[in-house]
Amino acid sequence: MPVHLSPPDAASLHPVSGVRIGVAEAGIRKAGRKDLTVMLLDEGASVGGVFTQNRFCAAPVQVCREHLTAGAGADIRALVINTGCANAGTGAAGLEAARRTCDALAAQLGVRPQQVLPFSTGVILEPLPLERLQAGLPAALADAQPAHWLKAAEGIMTTDTVPKARSVKASVGGAQVTVTGISKGAGMIRPNMATMLGFVATDACVAPGLMPQLARALAESSFNRVTVDGDTSTNDSFIVIATNKAGHAPVQSLQSPEGQALFAALLEVARWLAQAIVRDGEGATKFITVQVEGGQNAAECRQVAYAIAHSPLVKTAFFASDPNLGRILAAIGYAGIADLDTEKIDLYLDGVHVATRGGRHPDYREEDGQRVMKQPEITVRVNLGRGAASETVWTCDLSHEYVSINADYRS
Amino acid sequence: MPVHLSPPDAASLHPVSGVRIGVAEAGIRKAGRKDLTVMLLDEGASVGGVFTQNRFCAAPVQVCREHLTAGAGADIRALVINTGCANAGTGAAGLEAARRTCDALAAQLGVRPQQVLPFSTGVILEPLPLERLQAGLPAALADAQPAHWLKAAEGIMTTDTVPKARSVKASVGGAQVTVTGISKGAGMIRPNMATMLGFVATDACVAPGLMPQLARALAESSFNRVTVDGDTSTNDSFIVIATNKAGHAPVQSLQSPEGQALFAALLEVARWLAQAIVRDGEGATKFITVQVEGGQNAAECRQVAYAIAHSPLVKTAFFASDPNLGRILAAIGYAGIADLDTEKIDLYLDGVHVATRGGRHPDYREEDGQRVMKQPEITVRVNLGRGAASETVWTCDLSHEYVSINADYRS
Repeated sequence: MPVHLSPPDAASLHPVSGVRIGVAEAGIRKAGRKDLTVMLLDEGASVGGVFTQNRFCAAPVQVCREHLTAGAGADIRALVINTGCANAGTGAAGLEAARRTCDALAAQLGVRPQQVLPFSTGVILEPLPLERLQAGLPAALADAQPAHWLKAAEGIMTTDTVPKARSVKASVGGAQVTVTGISKGAGMIRPNMATMLGFVATDACVAPGLMPQLARALAESSFNRVTVDGDTSTNDSFIVIATNKAGHAPVQSLQSPEGQALFAALLEVARWLAQAIVRDGEGATKFITVQVEGGQNAAECRQVAYAIAHSPLVKTAFFASDPNLGRILAAIGYAGIADLDTEKIDLYLDGVHVATRGGRHPDYREEDGQRVMKQPEITVRVNLGRGAASETVWTCDLSHEYVSINADYRS
Repeated sequence: MPVHLSPPDAASLHPVSGVRIGVAEAGIRKAGRKDLTVMLLDEGASVGGVFTQNRFCAAPVQVCREHLTAGAGADIRALVINTGCANAGTGAAGLEAARRTCDALAAQLGVRPQQVLPFSTGVILEPLPLERLQAGLPAALADAQPAHWLKAAEGIMTTDTVPKARSVKASVGGAQVTVTGISKGAGMIRPNMATMLGFVATDACVAPGLMPQLARALAESSFNRVTVDGDTSTNDSFIVIATNKAGHAPVQSLQSPEGQALFAALLEVARWLAQAIVRDGEGATKFITVQVEGGQNAAECRQVAYAIAHSPLVKTAFFASDPNLGRILAAIGYAGIADLDTEKIDLYLDGVHVATRGGRHPDYREEDGQRVMKQPEITVRVNLGRGAASETVWTCDLSHEYVSINADYRS
């Protein structure tokens, strides 16, 4: 049961001028599934991307990096996404299959293969069924419509239980712009139907050279701040598309007023999509915000936040609604800050002051902790008492269902 | 169900001359439990210790460090171990309680408080019931016998399902020596009945100055190479005792022939005790050896080994006997070796060659992987193809039972 996450209403997802989406059944892994999605971009769109840091990165990730570098993200015309096979751990043959995928779609669109970005999600170590994928492309192209965002959100799902899509409108440089995005995933890596994918498009006008920075900055405050199990997929990809249709002067800098307005709208969508992955996390029953403040720098705040968010003991305590809060202190203690002074640490669970000066707060009562732990949404707030930096990470609990999903997958 | 681990036969545990053990029920957390153990050492023993790196280290750990430093480990006369309360996250009052524990036992033995080492394991953030502990000491002292090693192994258990004790004899410097040890724990941190504890004693003669190095070297190849859930307790302690009774010339160096003979015997016991913790790991159904070779240095081999051993996805795949081996490649990929060349990596599951050159081995068949995955003991072997270093880590799978144990604890 996802935590406070319902399927989006198709009418709430605004089309983005310059983007058309088509979905088809290609039978990649199983028959009768919508497993192939194409996203077609009008000429003139700017595209930026951020990809997995996993050294075993999948073949399509390698090809995406090449194609974005080759054209500096200014000439991309199509994205093609398959589920059912990650095309990762597949060596030279996998790379060739990813390239052939681009060739096939490019030929049908009359563009160059370098203008296509491929994405795959599914089982690792198995070859991509290239012929079935290619055979499915005409149906996907025939299906392409601006209004198909919900279909796309459904088309890229693997073991997600809810399609994830979000849309907002904002004013940028005097024009009204639309931001619409989709994501999939239920962990940094979902079973080995691996992978988190995120695609956000806007009709706003953005200088192509700004796109890599925009993608990185958005990912840093959204997809790079969520974790289910700490596993990083071989295929993680986040793509930002600006179709440059909204008719305002192109955004040249993220610091300008119009840059800030656009960034805020994009971040709202990206963060919602990232949090949706946690809300639909494998077996999740609680949505946990871990907020670490009072650090000397952002990096040490993240270290502590991830130590808490990744601790199986903390996560099972949340699942059990057990205010076993010593586990959080223990995680703070082993997060790796060598000169951490535990005497300066405060711990709060929502509004409840649990620990101070390295020990239990004198006013803390177990029933207060219990009350917060029973909620479906909980904020853990840690003050390290060392400085002014802060960071926030979102995660979920660790339940029986997580083990079931991951143990039973592939069967 | 622990993996290939049965309760030890009391007759197999050889007494160590110069060590007597007594156990009592002190009612620390619950009545009717043997929760207080004393280990009494004859004058002249040498003691070394290794403790948790957690910054939130428990009060008894702080006191152990002080007392071992004060006397350089050459004057310790007693160890006192309670279960039921970790005395961690308890601030100044907790430190005072640990000191009063030493005072009380020292007074009854007619030694100085600095000659006593205290150990606690149990719930974090709760005060140590000092009066009950003190009241239990006379019964524990009255019970003290050289043959009580099995009682001690039982006395320090918390949620362990099997007492852990091991004994060997060896020839050192022309004398026959005995090595006997006990351990407890079912994870680096067990629920928040936290903590791994290990105590190994020998009647061999060891120069006191060698003890800290001996303890560190043993821990590095035993207790520091096991992991259940990656959580590091606030109370982890490993103590090595040499009673200097065996009548041979004291070992002055671990490089000498007698030093090597003694180290081998101690390591056999320490490693067995450490592995027993994994075999009895929370909900464990499989015992996994992760062997990483071909690294440039030992540190990067450990990085990769722990990435595999800590991955919830790898661990659930082992639980399910699912040869979902792409998960292992993914963990290798995100272990943090920036210049890792995936083309040079080989992966074996016992004798089965699963992956080569970053992809599936052409001869690998799913049924071979399946056969190995069904075994209760499995070796994952990774060759990084970068150098000559290697490291081994032991871990277990992640099962429904792990979640149950950790979610239901304290109830």
